[in-house]
Amino acid sequence: MDKFDPATAHLLGACDARAAIEQGLLSSQELVAACFARIDELEESIGAWAHLDREWAMAQARAADKFRSRGLEIGPLHGLPVGVKDIIDTSDYPTERGTLLHQGRRPTQDATLVSLLKEAGAIILGKTVSTEMAVFSPGKTRNPHNPAHTPGGSSSGSAAAVSAAMVALAVGTQTNGSIIRPASYCGVYGFKPSFGRISRHAVLKQSPPLDTVGVFTRSLEDLALIADILMRYDAQDSAMIPIAPPCIGKVLAQQVPAAQHFAFVRSPVWEQVEQVTKDGLRELIDAVNASREKTVDIVDLPAPFTELHEDHRRVMEADLARIFATEYDTGKTELSAVLREMIERGQQVSDREYHDALAKMQNYDLLLEEIFDEYDAILTPATPGPAPAGLDATGSPVMNTIWTFCGTPAINVPLLQSPEQLPIGVQVVGAKGDDARLFRSTRWLLNILND
Amino acid sequence: MDKFDPATAHLLGACDARAAIEQGLLSSQELVAACFARIDELEESIGAWAHLDREWAMAQARAADKFRSRGLEIGPLHGLPVGVKDIIDTSDYPTERGTLLHQGRRPTQDATLVSLLKEAGAIILGKTVSTEMAVFSPGKTRNPHNPAHTPGGSSSGSAAAVSAAMVALAVGTQTNGSIIRPASYCGVYGFKPSFGRISRHAVLKQSPPLDTVGVFTRSLEDLALIADILMRYDAQDSAMIPIAPPCIGKVLAQQVPAAQHFAFVRSPVWEQVEQVTKDGLRELIDAVNASREKTVDIVDLPAPFTELHEDHRRVMEADLARIFATEYDTGKTELSAVLREMIERGQQVSDREYHDALAKMQNYDLLLEEIFDEYDAILTPATPGPAPAGLDATGSPVMNTIWTFCGTPAINVPLLQSPEQLPIGVQVVGAKGDDARLFRSTRWLLNILND
Repeated sequence: MDKFDPATAHLLGACDARAAIEQGLLSSQELVAACFARIDELEESIGAWAHLDREWAMAQARAADKFRSRGLEIGPLHGLPVGVKDIIDTSDYPTERGTLLHQGRRPTQDATLVSLLKEAGAIILGKTVSTEMAVFSPGKTRNPHNPAHTPGGSSSGSAAAVSAAMVALAVGTQTNGSIIRPASYCGVYGFKPSFGRISRHAVLKQSPPLDTVGVFTRSLEDLALIADILMRYDAQDSAMIPIAPPCIGKVLAQQVPAAQHFAFVRSPVWEQVEQVTKDGLRELIDAVNASREKTVDIVDLPAPFTELHEDHRRVMEADLARIFATEYDTGKTELSAVLREMIERGQQVSDREYHDALAKMQNYDLLLEEIFDEYDAILTPATPGPAPAGLDATGSPVMNTIWTFCGTPAINVPLLQSPEQLPIGVQVVGAKGDDARLFRSTRWLLNILND
Repeated sequence: MDKFDPATAHLLGACDARAAIEQGLLSSQELVAACFARIDELEESIGAWAHLDREWAMAQARAADKFRSRGLEIGPLHGLPVGVKDIIDTSDYPTERGTLLHQGRRPTQDATLVSLLKEAGAIILGKTVSTEMAVFSPGKTRNPHNPAHTPGGSSSGSAAAVSAAMVALAVGTQTNGSIIRPASYCGVYGFKPSFGRISRHAVLKQSPPLDTVGVFTRSLEDLALIADILMRYDAQDSAMIPIAPPCIGKVLAQQVPAAQHFAFVRSPVWEQVEQVTKDGLRELIDAVNASREKTVDIVDLPAPFTELHEDHRRVMEADLARIFATEYDTGKTELSAVLREMIERGQQVSDREYHDALAKMQNYDLLLEEIFDEYDAILTPATPGPAPAGLDATGSPVMNTIWTFCGTPAINVPLLQSPEQLPIGVQVVGAKGDDARLFRSTRWLLNILND
């Protein structure tokens, strides 16, 4: 790699920037300065950030450059700026959760995932915009591909900031479609790991059986880089169990042991998918099968899955009603109508209904296992279509609900485009717990498409 | 590697056992069974263990073997038994801290370091004997090299269990000489990292500016293996800062960039060192210098270090008085005379004296830095001599106090022997924060000696 113009350093992917820093071709201060120049240029029209502190970010970068000069091993994210969704606690930035009700909130402690980022050497560049309490009511963020369109939500700012090259790495969360949907709309890679693989300690709770932390980048390799940092056991998150980190980067670099097979799953909500998405996906699958016969089969989910969206709604809304009870009781008028209605519906869910819905998770898992016995991964749309016009809603998570409820790992791959040049993502879903293999299968698919 | 007799698997080092498990030549259940057979044979005479639960250990091993069969990445300690000092909280074993006052104590939560071990795939084999509250009053443990001699303390059981090949990996703690001393007496490798590099969350507090977690093994490579697992940032330990893990194993495998130079430091307490140790160390240094000229110089610590042992005493005893106040107030009669006296002396230390002593730490650090500017590491005895006869005391930590107070990393290398075949360790000390380089320098030294 040659020494390059540091003014364009914000365009580098994270792996490339890290290599440049390690080789002394780029300093963290130059990289952070380039990111801030990009933010100066675009933030007014995109609005990806809830909190920025240029001086503190530069101070972190100076410390990183100084640490490197000591000649000690540097971390895998050494000197790289990261955006963190504003529902994730940080000791050095406010965490206001997209609502006036938490305005001025300043946690004293970092979320575990933030401490893992810092240990890895990352620069916390700022906090990215979340919808209200990470539910539906939008923040100020606009879609970098067309500012008249929604970026999706709830991790709106993280997806938009990565898409606009303000930062190469960002963290978000998903309880329904809050990572994969904005990744699809903003045309970036998004990864929602298997349930229980990234700590949610000091992350806003919405619905503990569903809440999942994930990441955004502009390449699959960068996605693996940051996922490997965050997928660490933390006893402070009771949903986690102590199993070995998946070593995604290592597995991703391996050859697949055999040709991969994918199940093209249309799902019970197929009628909600737009024609442009159907056509694009059909074309893509034909191209894959033309290149390698019988790589992709059409597979329908078994009948019980028609009930899943309602099961998810009951669990999530009942949890919202319980967990946001204080906000509802003391600040109802500050809540959006959409959140208020969800809470009120949640209040109507009986304990029996809630636990019946939860109990069905295992059943769905068993049904999915049958598919994954035969197929390496599932292909399905990431969103019904491209980002809808308008900024008063964040689009539909309907294509994401199944994979959140079942806790399977999912990657948004930005492969399709609408006639208006808006991105549409393909969602690749793996077996629960097989996160690293999902990356490897996705790489294999991309290699075929690039052949 | 050939398939070997699983009955001798307990003799394997951790790196070798891990390789055998990965290659399918050994199961974790076989390894755990071999360790328990060894314990059955020797525990009555050695008394290394405070708590053992064979069924639970075998259940963990079964789970590890089952996990491996799924073909996912396995952790660096996958299937390997570890002994954990009984002042470190575990959710699945009692943690009684070597005192009747905490008999029956069952924490509900794992210490962070235990959760890191579990994440890496380790089997927690049991809890190892600590002296009373990790201070001086001995537990039941005897020295595996001669049961009439002390194993040293306070991490008596961890050192003895590794020495007796009941387990290849164990964890201990040091506030004065509680890792390096028993390692020296028991003839095993011991590592006390730089201060603030292994989490003490849910580890018994004695003296927070001094308490340091460390490890025991029978080889330098194994020491690096387990140290790399434990040296992770944890925001729950306020002495830690988020810097990158040292990657000791990686650095240890590198060639040193230049010939290494060692400072042979006799320290202000040299008159307490026994002749056998002086002679052995002299011979060793002559052998090194004969093989490579001017590798080791004699260096004296500057005059201020004559005050350090008293500074350490004030800090440690004042902290003991404050932190063990409840035990002293409510259970004085259950405390040993030696601990009671330390607490009572600690009660006499004024706040001014305490903070003056603490403030001198930085000064000592600066003086040591001058040595480390010139030398890669320090060589000094690990203990005044071999393990003293008798079981009513654990020997003198006087050779360890400086390096604990200054927070420098230190390794015990079992290189010397008394005429009675008792081991005596050489202590290799590195610059604060340069833990990985200390390992590399130690490997270089060992290579010269083995030439």
